[in-house]
Amino acid sequence: MKTLVIISHPDILESGSQQFLLNAVPKEGVTVHHLETAYPDGKINVEKEHQLLETHDRIIFQFPFYWYSSPAFLKQWQDEVLVEGFAHGKAGGRLVGKEFGLIFMLGVHEREYQAGGRELFTISELTRPFQAVAHKTGMIYLRPLTVYQFAYMNDEEKMDLYIQYQQKLTNKNDSSLAAREDWMVEQINKLDTKDLEPEAADILKHAAELMTTNRTTIDELQVVMDQMW
Amino acid sequence: MKTLVIISHPDILESGSQQFLLNAVPKEGVTVHHLETAYPDGKINVEKEHQLLETHDRIIFQFPFYWYSSPAFLKQWQDEVLVEGFAHGKAGGRLVGKEFGLIFMLGVHEREYQAGGRELFTISELTRPFQAVAHKTGMIYLRPLTVYQFAYMNDEEKMDLYIQYQQKLTNKNDSSLAAREDWMVEQINKLDTKDLEPEAADILKHAAELMTTNRTTIDELQVVMDQMW
Repeated sequence: MKTLVIISHPDILESGSQQFLLNAVPKEGVTVHHLETAYPDGKINVEKEHQLLETHDRIIFQFPFYWYSSPAFLKQWQDEVLVEGFAHGKAGGRLVGKEFGLIFMLGVHEREYQAGGRELFTISELTRPFQAVAHKTGMIYLRPLTVYQFAYMNDEEKMDLYIQYQQKLTNKNDSSLAAREDWMVEQINKLDTKDLEPEAADILKHAAELMTTNRTTIDELQVVMDQMW
Repeated sequence: MKTLVIISHPDILESGSQQFLLNAVPKEGVTVHHLETAYPDGKINVEKEHQLLETHDRIIFQFPFYWYSSPAFLKQWQDEVLVEGFAHGKAGGRLVGKEFGLIFMLGVHEREYQAGGRELFTISELTRPFQAVAHKTGMIYLRPLTVYQFAYMNDEEKMDLYIQYQQKLTNKNDSSLAAREDWMVEQINKLDTKDLEPEAADILKHAAELMTTNRTTIDELQVVMDQMW
């Protein structure tokens, strides 16, 4: 699977969260495409964008949440790139079956996005326009990855975000325990352990083995628990 | 009441619906502000926009519905103009109590905007981000005026739109029968009848009188009907 991460951020170098996530991008299978860097004059090369979209299976929009939506340049990208004849309409349908997901950063606490909260609406409600884009173009809409108040995150929360981000980019669209186990074992096995201390490499190897060995037990437990309900 | 109509349309001269509505703009109490004409280089004068907002009581966004939202330039306007310290935040609150409404044109039939329709979501769902802007800035959110498939409208539908549009710009936020009667009588009385045929002027005068005279009867009827329920 090839993933295209389309980032829109007017000042990406100054953004702590964006820099953190850029460092977390897996080395293989992911193309990062920052619109403001690619098109400093604001003129989008539509043909090049179409090629990028066609050669990837998962499309991600990554951006700061400005006024309950993306920055204006990502909206311009949608209006110019997702045209009739390509993304929808009779001769369109070129995005059908691809996956489409959002990753966005919010300055307000998660609890405010609900009825009775200061922002009044849920994230699912506020992102309906993006979900409608996926629906219109025949793409499979992924659960968004929302990053609330990155500046206040502690190290553990950041590490958690790091893993979630990598999964959103490269894991199959399946949040079951089995799928997440597969992904984790695969990541560990892919690690280049040459540069690690021998001890650390051993621990990692052991962790992957444990996960694989205990898998049957965990899966059986899951079956028993399912039957209890 | 003073109304500010902020229009965003990249090609307003070629738009039949926009030209139709421009002709319907009442002569008094309404300021029309087409962003792409005001800022052909895309550079928004934020201070000027703040002044415009502060000197008007009702703010209208008028635009074609592109990918379930406004054109990108209106999004840029939001991001640059509705800043903390003006529109929200501690030193903000300058828009509190104003009214905020949307008028937008759609190329798809009204029936598709619902569960089971081709667009899947309702207009209320798709415009949540704008409603959230009103909420955050303390503005009163008006029912949107949606113009579906203007190109297919017949003369009667267009005349209906003409009236609805004028009401959205100048009528108080009250859709009761009484408020609509008031508005209509006021419009007729404001008409300059000098240029009309004497007969036409008489008919109009008579219509306004009829409406005023029958008003008590209509209002009484309404009371009776309310009691029947």
